[in-house]
Amino acid sequence: MLYIIGLGLGDEMDITLKGLEAVRRCHKVYVEAYTSLLSFGLAIDGLSRMEKLYGREIVIADREMVEEGADSILNEAADSDVAFLVVGDPFGATTHTDLVVRAKNMGLQVKVIHNASVMNAIGVCGLQLYRYGETVSIPFFTETWRPDSFYPKIKRNRQLGLHTLCLLDIRVKEPSLESLCRGKKCYEPPRYMTIHTAIDQLLEVEEMNEESAYSAETKCVGIARLGYDDQVIVAGSMKDLLDVDFGPPLHCLVIVGETHPVEEEMLEFYSIKSSNV
Amino acid sequence: MLYIIGLGLGDEMDITLKGLEAVRRCHKVYVEAYTSLLSFGLAIDGLSRMEKLYGREIVIADREMVEEGADSILNEAADSDVAFLVVGDPFGATTHTDLVVRAKNMGLQVKVIHNASVMNAIGVCGLQLYRYGETVSIPFFTETWRPDSFYPKIKRNRQLGLHTLCLLDIRVKEPSLESLCRGKKCYEPPRYMTIHTAIDQLLEVEEMNEESAYSAETKCVGIARLGYDDQVIVAGSMKDLLDVDFGPPLHCLVIVGETHPVEEEMLEFYSIKSSNV
Repeated sequence: MLYIIGLGLGDEMDITLKGLEAVRRCHKVYVEAYTSLLSFGLAIDGLSRMEKLYGREIVIADREMVEEGADSILNEAADSDVAFLVVGDPFGATTHTDLVVRAKNMGLQVKVIHNASVMNAIGVCGLQLYRYGETVSIPFFTETWRPDSFYPKIKRNRQLGLHTLCLLDIRVKEPSLESLCRGKKCYEPPRYMTIHTAIDQLLEVEEMNEESAYSAETKCVGIARLGYDDQVIVAGSMKDLLDVDFGPPLHCLVIVGETHPVEEEMLEFYSIKSSNV
Repeated sequence: MLYIIGLGLGDEMDITLKGLEAVRRCHKVYVEAYTSLLSFGLAIDGLSRMEKLYGREIVIADREMVEEGADSILNEAADSDVAFLVVGDPFGATTHTDLVVRAKNMGLQVKVIHNASVMNAIGVCGLQLYRYGETVSIPFFTETWRPDSFYPKIKRNRQLGLHTLCLLDIRVKEPSLESLCRGKKCYEPPRYMTIHTAIDQLLEVEEMNEESAYSAETKCVGIARLGYDDQVIVAGSMKDLLDVDFGPPLHCLVIVGETHPVEEEMLEFYSIKSSNV
């Protein structure tokens, strides 16, 4: 049996009782460490805290191991109970759907244990989840690669009065260009896009396209470390949010559409102009 | 301190360790029982199972208590630690946002503990969460009231190639018309919309509007009891799904947009034509 278990968003205490029970039933436990920042897995004592609480040795499965070594994980799951721990909810990322497909193709039993992810926990900012349009991803721009496929999507959402959740780029264990050329693997240091970078890129793309999808005055909500004890939520215009220190990753950004009164009231609490920032 | 704690989707074991710790710290514990079916709270022994596991007496807060009696709950939270337990994630429903707004207006500290909800757990059917458009609600039609505001939203989502999550109506503790007339409160028995009723209503609205937003041949995924041990997921055309017995509530429905290969592969496992139904 392959258990795919969501860990939620905060720390090792965000696992569910059902998830913990499953972990303790397993002979082998992996934790994915590449689709999002695993604060408690990557922190110096994070992995050991998890291992202590869960009562199991935990193997960090990095990008390569999951994409190239999935078969060996799945073969283990054919013979015994194996847990694959995922930050957030198991189906936040395509990679895990792919793992489930492979497992099912092998005839393995798969049991999913859900948890919170950015896709629903974002509701904490007060904007109603059913009033969001398509979610967009903002990738890091490079000198030569400045993709803006998010632009028409945001424009459409805003025309419909819908909010837009912007997921900001995460680059963990990317092979360095130099290492690719030399044929041996070295990795770039991990990079997490900040709200500031996202807004800079958004405004650059608006300037290029000039379709008035949004502007520096457009109301947004910046959220850092969603679900963590030190989570920061600030509502304000894009321009205003550039002055806010959101602290360490992960960051995400919501571009606000039309708002209802109860949404307005919640945003007021997080307003850059109110005292609680 | 007011703790608003998500219970997740399945049973009493879906609470997180962090949520359980908070519950055990509180002097008073409420559980909401009106925005969705609380299978473990409404089941005969559900509440007692929760009380036993959580080690606290739990008060069921029905719709009236939350909407009309919120002040007394909040006053208690001003003096001591109070937990308000919510099926799914705290921000799945507007009512809870309203409770947070009221609490913050009173200067109360509010701590939210997230969990899975239909808005992210729906990912289990294999359709990627970032490829959903606006979520729609399908209300029960009556003789005289057949609202179809979902229709243009579904049409738009489909034109954009996006999936549509349809949340199906839940009617719990609705005052009966008769009782309203007589001035004393009696309630209708609870009603939960089935996938069959939703599809019937969807097809009726398509026939009325004739804008080809979808048809009886449109591919959908029906999901019953999402996150429960006996969850049922079946993919097929609207017409085909009318022949499937999905069993007890809760039901929800996804109208499929354009699909990517990995989405196709997952849907194949749930296909009405495959053997695993």
